[in-house]
Amino acid sequence: MEPVNLGLLGMGTVGGGTVTVLTDNAGEIARRAGREIHIAHAAAHQYDPQIRGLERIGRISKDASAVVEDPDIDIVIELIGGYSPAKELVLRAIEQGKHVVTANKALIALHGNEIFAAARGRGVTVAFEAAVAGGIPIIKALREGLAANHIEWIAGIINGTGNYILTEMGDKGRDFDAVLAEAQALGYAEADPAFDVEGIDAAHKLTILGSLAFGMPLQFAKTYTEGISGIQAQDVAYAADLGYQIKHLGITRKTDQGIEMRVHPTLIPRRRLIANVNGVMNAVLIKGDAVGPTLYYGAGAGAMPTASAVVADVVDVTRALTTDRDNRVPHLAFQPDELSDVPVLPMEQVRTAYYLRVIALDQPGVMARIAGILGEEGISIEAIQQKAPAQGDTHVPLVMLTRRVPEGQMNRAIARIENLESVTGQVVRIRMEPLAG
Amino acid sequence: MEPVNLGLLGMGTVGGGTVTVLTDNAGEIARRAGREIHIAHAAAHQYDPQIRGLERIGRISKDASAVVEDPDIDIVIELIGGYSPAKELVLRAIEQGKHVVTANKALIALHGNEIFAAARGRGVTVAFEAAVAGGIPIIKALREGLAANHIEWIAGIINGTGNYILTEMGDKGRDFDAVLAEAQALGYAEADPAFDVEGIDAAHKLTILGSLAFGMPLQFAKTYTEGISGIQAQDVAYAADLGYQIKHLGITRKTDQGIEMRVHPTLIPRRRLIANVNGVMNAVLIKGDAVGPTLYYGAGAGAMPTASAVVADVVDVTRALTTDRDNRVPHLAFQPDELSDVPVLPMEQVRTAYYLRVIALDQPGVMARIAGILGEEGISIEAIQQKAPAQGDTHVPLVMLTRRVPEGQMNRAIARIENLESVTGQVVRIRMEPLAG
Repeated sequence: MEPVNLGLLGMGTVGGGTVTVLTDNAGEIARRAGREIHIAHAAAHQYDPQIRGLERIGRISKDASAVVEDPDIDIVIELIGGYSPAKELVLRAIEQGKHVVTANKALIALHGNEIFAAARGRGVTVAFEAAVAGGIPIIKALREGLAANHIEWIAGIINGTGNYILTEMGDKGRDFDAVLAEAQALGYAEADPAFDVEGIDAAHKLTILGSLAFGMPLQFAKTYTEGISGIQAQDVAYAADLGYQIKHLGITRKTDQGIEMRVHPTLIPRRRLIANVNGVMNAVLIKGDAVGPTLYYGAGAGAMPTASAVVADVVDVTRALTTDRDNRVPHLAFQPDELSDVPVLPMEQVRTAYYLRVIALDQPGVMARIAGILGEEGISIEAIQQKAPAQGDTHVPLVMLTRRVPEGQMNRAIARIENLESVTGQVVRIRMEPLAG
Repeated sequence: MEPVNLGLLGMGTVGGGTVTVLTDNAGEIARRAGREIHIAHAAAHQYDPQIRGLERIGRISKDASAVVEDPDIDIVIELIGGYSPAKELVLRAIEQGKHVVTANKALIALHGNEIFAAARGRGVTVAFEAAVAGGIPIIKALREGLAANHIEWIAGIINGTGNYILTEMGDKGRDFDAVLAEAQALGYAEADPAFDVEGIDAAHKLTILGSLAFGMPLQFAKTYTEGISGIQAQDVAYAADLGYQIKHLGITRKTDQGIEMRVHPTLIPRRRLIANVNGVMNAVLIKGDAVGPTLYYGAGAGAMPTASAVVADVVDVTRALTTDRDNRVPHLAFQPDELSDVPVLPMEQVRTAYYLRVIALDQPGVMARIAGILGEEGISIEAIQQKAPAQGDTHVPLVMLTRRVPEGQMNRAIARIENLESVTGQVVRIRMEPLAG
């Protein structure tokens, strides 16, 4: 069969990795795909001239539009990132009848509905395996491997930088700021770390996972997002004393009232496999009604792992070039006419258990008053511990674990506790999930 | 579009689960696949009349041939198990131009080459996701999700019964025989447990994984197979003291000399994620050159998890009904003309590290003599420990960890050690793998 001609937009980290993987493994990839795969035309404003395989690219220019318009190109790979001009280029490629492969989670999470509609209208595919959890084939698992299941929930460690920071805090008792500074020095975290540590990157990925799991349009704006910058070393230690790890999770769950979509630090039991996923690694735990819990683990970022997913998509799209368009795997797992308008549940109605830390005066009756407020708000306490005060301090930390309660109810209780005269500062509140099979 | 008509052979555990999953999740499955999926004709000698969804089956008889010959059937699902008549029925279904979905690992491992050749000749697909690791979409991950990678090695916990037994031995210090008897009473292990505990079931699955990873024909007869029935509680405990878990692994690895294919008990470092996969759960660790290590975890057996994989295959095959046959995912991951005749490495040439336990007289010079033999055979010792003797015993256990060495060399050293007068009984030898990314 004829070789497949790729057009490559962007030759930064992932673009360079893609060139290298297609070069290093050209033989094995062709043996799998049944035809040669060739980068015929690439565009990049700048690139490392040392990229392995660069010499195999047909033509390199700075003009992304020329790649998108090139009549010889079958599949356009968008690895520029960001919203613009990535979006315009992807839409133009679709208009030209080209299939698209992208690693751009922000683009898919915010503009995926529009892009998929355009692709459907033109009968082409937009593949985006690399957009979630890097090299882990999680979109394929969810969309195809678990197609028999009613998905109940997903919980994922889907930002490697955040997981690296929490792992270091847990293993070495270090503070967030110190670990972040080190991660930046090591190149794990960007100079502006907000996308990673404030959970925005994870929220992009969770938005995509939620739509794939529950067959609904992408709704990034409705995903609750809370980062890890407020996590303190002492809470990591107290959680460990109680048998828990704090992980930054993206969680989506189907309830009778709607779909939960939330990214936040979470206490999870240390004996769960996902609690032992450390450093920059990612893992996604999916609970299906037939299969039970399944977990997928691997590198969530980096040049070569992400390129692994990009090239897997290229092979998939290559195979689909000759399929009847109605029989392709649908972009959001469910047929586009079959997407559901199930609501996303407001965070106030989401039910979780909680870890609370209250700094209170070390005097009789304080613990009773706090417990009393929780009781009045209908919140059951699972455990309560008074920790040692700092040297010479008249205040002590009280650590509590509660049963599951709607977030709105917990917000009211916390406001009342913070109003007590004997309580200092804000209540630390971290949600807890059992993640039980 | 027209509904897809399935013919079902066998309504035992997995067959019943398949009927139930197709019933419970009919709506979601159709929303994903784009068409209704319907069991039009089923054959079973006996079945539980309480199976949920039984009433939705078009027709039920005892005549499997009638299902295979039924002109209305698009896809035949073979869930009878064993070699005969499963093989004849599958070949006959292929001859009739029907696609086949099977969960039969023994059939694929031993007769897959013949079956795939027949399917290729007739232009149909044989899907077998359920044959390895139950509900975990591991075949899809390896064949499609990691298609960009040169696979370096795979190590999997692919028999749940064996993993349950080793977990119990490790957690509770119990003996193999006691745990096995309990597993049989609980229904986890068959009355004849040989397939599970002697590693034959795992060897079937590893044979399939090795072919998918390295693009070679299925060669069950060349897979080295060693079970867990010889594992003693004290070795589980000694391994734990050294920071290792004993797991029953299927391992396949590409070396310059050939492909390793081996199933045996293995010491692995406790800090590896896969060392924490406990009970009846399965997990497969795959190392690709681009993606690095990835791990896939879930239930490896059971009615509903296995049915999850069967039905995912049905959805896949349904989508492929209208594809050009040359563009389907190839049965063994690589195009059939591109399979390689790379040799399977004889076990004597496989290099691993070892855990050794020697029972020796507690007298001066014994340890030196044993260490001397290892040195003469070119084997480096990583650690050596003398354990406490049993009360009143003049013999002591010596536990050693060695560096990597070809198995043939180790066999010679062990024979010489066993010949020492001061050594009693056989040397216990368990292979070790670092499983480092």
